[in-house]
Amino acid sequence: MFLAKELIKKKRNGEALSKEEIEYFILEYTAGKIPDYQMSALLMAIYFKGMNNAETLALTDTMLHSGTIIDFSKVPGFKVDKHSTGGVGDKTSMILGPIVAAVGMSVPMISGRGLGHTGGTLDKLESIPGFNTQFSLPDFQAAIEKHRICFIGQTKEICPADKKIYALRDVTATIASLPLICASIMSKKLAEGIDGLVLDVKFGSGAFMKDLDQAEELAQALMTIAKGYGKKVAALITNMDQPLGRYSGNSLEIEECVAIMKNEVHHNHHGEDTYADCRELSLQLSAYMLWMGGATKNIDDAYHLAQVALGSGRAYEKFEELCRIHGGNLKALPKPKNRYDVLAKKAGVIESMDTEQIGVAGIQIRSGRAKVTDIIEPTAGIEFHSKVGNQVRTGDILFTVFGEDLSLLKSIEDRLLGSVKITEAGAEPQPLIAKILL
Amino acid sequence: MFLAKELIKKKRNGEALSKEEIEYFILEYTAGKIPDYQMSALLMAIYFKGMNNAETLALTDTMLHSGTIIDFSKVPGFKVDKHSTGGVGDKTSMILGPIVAAVGMSVPMISGRGLGHTGGTLDKLESIPGFNTQFSLPDFQAAIEKHRICFIGQTKEICPADKKIYALRDVTATIASLPLICASIMSKKLAEGIDGLVLDVKFGSGAFMKDLDQAEELAQALMTIAKGYGKKVAALITNMDQPLGRYSGNSLEIEECVAIMKNEVHHNHHGEDTYADCRELSLQLSAYMLWMGGATKNIDDAYHLAQVALGSGRAYEKFEELCRIHGGNLKALPKPKNRYDVLAKKAGVIESMDTEQIGVAGIQIRSGRAKVTDIIEPTAGIEFHSKVGNQVRTGDILFTVFGEDLSLLKSIEDRLLGSVKITEAGAEPQPLIAKILL
Repeated sequence: MFLAKELIKKKRNGEALSKEEIEYFILEYTAGKIPDYQMSALLMAIYFKGMNNAETLALTDTMLHSGTIIDFSKVPGFKVDKHSTGGVGDKTSMILGPIVAAVGMSVPMISGRGLGHTGGTLDKLESIPGFNTQFSLPDFQAAIEKHRICFIGQTKEICPADKKIYALRDVTATIASLPLICASIMSKKLAEGIDGLVLDVKFGSGAFMKDLDQAEELAQALMTIAKGYGKKVAALITNMDQPLGRYSGNSLEIEECVAIMKNEVHHNHHGEDTYADCRELSLQLSAYMLWMGGATKNIDDAYHLAQVALGSGRAYEKFEELCRIHGGNLKALPKPKNRYDVLAKKAGVIESMDTEQIGVAGIQIRSGRAKVTDIIEPTAGIEFHSKVGNQVRTGDILFTVFGEDLSLLKSIEDRLLGSVKITEAGAEPQPLIAKILL
Repeated sequence: MFLAKELIKKKRNGEALSKEEIEYFILEYTAGKIPDYQMSALLMAIYFKGMNNAETLALTDTMLHSGTIIDFSKVPGFKVDKHSTGGVGDKTSMILGPIVAAVGMSVPMISGRGLGHTGGTLDKLESIPGFNTQFSLPDFQAAIEKHRICFIGQTKEICPADKKIYALRDVTATIASLPLICASIMSKKLAEGIDGLVLDVKFGSGAFMKDLDQAEELAQALMTIAKGYGKKVAALITNMDQPLGRYSGNSLEIEECVAIMKNEVHHNHHGEDTYADCRELSLQLSAYMLWMGGATKNIDDAYHLAQVALGSGRAYEKFEELCRIHGGNLKALPKPKNRYDVLAKKAGVIESMDTEQIGVAGIQIRSGRAKVTDIIEPTAGIEFHSKVGNQVRTGDILFTVFGEDLSLLKSIEDRLLGSVKITEAGAEPQPLIAKILL
């Protein structure tokens, strides 16, 4: 028997908690026997004093076993998922999921909703009329068994301890703690019953981790946990210094995914392929998922396999199948009523983009949420006509803002203009994939 | 309007909070509008990131003004109190209060109860049958006006914010934070409506602060606040490496105070005056209180004034008056039923005493409390026959344990023996007063 107060004190003093102590605190808290105020004090102590690998593993394990771990042992073949730390215009899940499932592996995805400046896969899918992500766990399992792909939201049965702790972290300024982030992400992913996981850990102006080193540290910490559970894992450290792809916004991102999976091509006024970065990242992530699952002996072959699945239209067929599973009517995808062009006020070369500010502008037009209870406007979004390294003239279109309410669209003009730094010298865009960790 | 979560984050990031932000957080919390879990997160962030002088003053001020500040402007003359950070056998309040009141100043004392290894003035006084410390504030004011001395406990009206926050700190391991300690102590003292305060900040094995530097840091921080309010203040940094005086334990300490105020003398088997240290510290603290209030031009004269008040019996008369005010029947002071002598198991010189362990032994025989709800046994206590520097032979009496239940008294023998380090070389006792800060 432990005393909550003494365990808080131990962590406050920088000592490591034992597996038994962590289990006691987390489970008693989840059961309502340790009050919120003692948990928040412990969380703040963890924020300052951290956790070692053993503690982070124990925390993950306790949260994982606080709920159901899905059993996919009856499903033949490799079960694999991808986790992204979030960004603006990041829509790869809806492309790589169908690619990997089309090749023959299972992709049981438990996704999240958008919060803050980053978007969420569930919101995007739900912009498709009728698309239902509220499956029971047995229905989710059945869908994976039959179709190898299904996207659902977190359920009550999955990691209830994490759910309760995350809500408390959100209101006590204890989100930004590496061990807490890792345990929260990994407990939910491990509950999916997967064999392997590819991580897309983003850094840059639109990511939670602003620099490469932080992102790599997070990736390593997540991989340590995955390996501790005997899972295959790889991490791509990717650049989020500018939005990914052509659009951000829910129905607009679905449109973009469809266009990519239909192998359509679109060029902006600079003559550049606007889908290139999103397509490339989706293929790369797919390649690591396929290679990890043993589909090919090396990455280049796996990349080729993904290209074929995409180029042949089989990925798109899988996406259409996915929509049917979820009851979504892709043909009825809503179109925005209004649009507003944001024009460059000065000439030069785009040196940088404050991508978080673009995400915040997205919240203002209701394509994202400031708080969980905010209602999303599915057609609201932003088109990116120019990116880092592009030459712009005064009066060139930088962004088009889409949505229902024209005055709301206009209201973010200044924020969008302020997010783009145009200078004489400009800068070269950075490579999309900065590092790969295996 | 502020957001609690953002203020927690600000402090977590090491930024200073403004007076308005501190006021908002504390008052909304006291009103029940900010929940415990956000306050405990803020407290832990303060534990790690501290507070600057302006923040500590703002916190003190908000807690002070959360309740009643007693108005003694109608009472003529200087109003002065003493605050001790707590120790074992520390009974000076009950001697210096009567001395200072006998000389003609007012001593409005709001005292505490014992918790952990340290004792509390209220518990000691309440060992006198009938002694009532539960006065209303108007009755307290009336007693001070008429008698210049009265001892009461904290009331609901005094610093309700501190009361609520202190209870939360106790269960979230956030007691040991210098700015929180300072604001808690000073808000309550300032609410007493005093003109001056003498601090007895203890260091050593029986004190909260184990070394001199920490004690001095605390004293300076407390003095900064007092000076910020235009109060006269002085701090004596005193040694608590061994118990103070002859006894610890509630009725036994009253007996000792009475003996000192009746100018009785008692020698231990080493031929030393067992009341010397407690008498001397009481006189020194009285001297600073009197000097501060302008009774004399210099400290030596003030010390002499205190000596005369004590030696003439006027302090004891004042103490008898105090007992009458509170309805206490000093003649009925209970005597312990049983006693048990703890004998030295080896010969040598006492090098050191683990005074905190002696305090913990006191909790075991119920002369103190482990938690606020514990019931005290008034006659339980310990007599100290030997102190640091004393030569002992095997079989010499080191301690006598007093109380109701003989088997309980015996049960602390090992702890008491373990608290005394006897070596060949031994050590000289340290000076009682290490430093004086003005």
